Amino acid sequence: MSYSGGLAKTQNIKLTIAYDGTNYHGFQEQRGTGLATIQETLEKALRELFGYEIKVIGAGRTDAGVHAKGQVVNFYLENRPIPEERIAQAVNGVLPEDIVVIKAEEAVSGFHARFSAVAKTYRYIIYNSSIPSPFYARYSYFVPRRLDLGLLKEGARRLEGRHDFSAFQAAGGTVENTVRTLYSVSVSEKKGQIHLVFKGDGFLYNMVRIMVGTLLEVALGKKEVRTIPDIMACGDRTKAGPTAPPQGLFLESVEY
Amino acid sequence: MSYSGGLAKTQNIKLTIAYDGTNYHGFQEQRGTGLATIQETLEKALRELFGYEIKVIGAGRTDAGVHAKGQVVNFYLENRPIPEERIAQAVNGVLPEDIVVIKAEEAVSGFHARFSAVAKTYRYIIYNSSIPSPFYARYSYFVPRRLDLGLLKEGARRLEGRHDFSAFQAAGGTVENTVRTLYSVSVSEKKGQIHLVFKGDGFLYNMVRIMVGTLLEVALGKKEVRTIPDIMACGDRTKAGPTAPPQGLFLESVEY
Repeated sequence: MSYSGGLAKTQNIKLTIAYDGTNYHGFQEQRGTGLATIQETLEKALRELFGYEIKVIGAGRTDAGVHAKGQVVNFYLENRPIPEERIAQAVNGVLPEDIVVIKAEEAVSGFHARFSAVAKTYRYIIYNSSIPSPFYARYSYFVPRRLDLGLLKEGARRLEGRHDFSAFQAAGGTVENTVRTLYSVSVSEKKGQIHLVFKGDGFLYNMVRIMVGTLLEVALGKKEVRTIPDIMACGDRTKAGPTAPPQGLFLESVEY
Repeated sequence: MSYSGGLAKTQNIKLTIAYDGTNYHGFQEQRGTGLATIQETLEKALRELFGYEIKVIGAGRTDAGVHAKGQVVNFYLENRPIPEERIAQAVNGVLPEDIVVIKAEEAVSGFHARFSAVAKTYRYIIYNSSIPSPFYARYSYFVPRRLDLGLLKEGARRLEGRHDFSAFQAAGGTVENTVRTLYSVSVSEKKGQIHLVFKGDGFLYNMVRIMVGTLLEVALGKKEVRTIPDIMACGDRTKAGPTAPPQGLFLESVEY
């Protein structure tokens, strides 16, 4: 290699992406499985566009079937050949239509999509109607039994705050510190679609889906709302409700 | 066969169905092609439920990739074994999740889903934004170039009324009378989604999609709005715009 007369300019690019997770086995690369993931599909598109291997870092490792409206990733580019304002369009030109770059911008060199995040927001959509909709089947959890919205809201309120959420972590979770702050859980309903929006400083593995599964048991009268603090206190996964299915979940936004 | 002591009671059942047409090769049965259609999938579900071959009649023959929110079909049942109010739920139990029975009711014996229809409403959705959405890719036509809503509305107004629509009929169309009445074409926009709603007494083959393709050329400045009456008058398909893609089209409702 010859001395180029100066340092190659490395840029840290931050992308905000949206995707329909239905046809992917989650965000993260699955070594050796041969299954398509969001990360691999994105890295393949970047390689096609820029001509060399690019590793992306994602803010949240969404599971198989989970969607995103505002996932954030970052990666490093050497001597960027495309003007910043045209990166989104260029990457979208090589991505399949179920993954879209919403925004591309240059970040400071130390920016890390996962470690720099200070808050995340997830949305869970429940389709609560006696008749399902073919257009929401991929994007919501169909629950035909009438849900008590008051109980949902009351249960949601009891989850808010700084707690040890180990009872709401899937068996595979291996983090040491299971204390998280849930800033807010809002519940709203419109034409039979119930939206649960969770904003917190971080989430354990499957935590949102287990909270939803627990709130559903409360709303269906299978669990009393006052047991929620007890479930949190005991830290026992088996006391919480089932894991709600992935297709209702959206990674809404990441804050830095 | 023995004499049963009375006439078997035949009932004419009317179903209102909704479907995501993405994975189907249109509504109508395709003999010998081996491709899944809405009609065949529905007939298979009915056979599974009632135990014998049932032929359904559909109000509109939607094309491959076209959706429906209110398609209507009818079929005859001998000695119905399920109470009327439970038919929808029972059929939904055997249908795949992208086809849903919204409503089931008994119709008068002469009711025919196609010939009894007096009006139909189609909706076409255009996703007009610089950035596509992965969640609307299956359910709209993505047009990144800014559309002139005023021109769209003006063009739509000129299509309304009783006209010979032969210029807006695909080459395959073989009906003798090509005069139809378009009661209304409404145009509305919300957050970059443009909805074009066509209500008429009948539609020729691909007529809605060719009208949309023509209106798009008007809205993009490729065709002058005043040429629309001339296109109708000449009856020449090549003077109208291209056929807009199927995924933006929904059969909204059928009136009787």
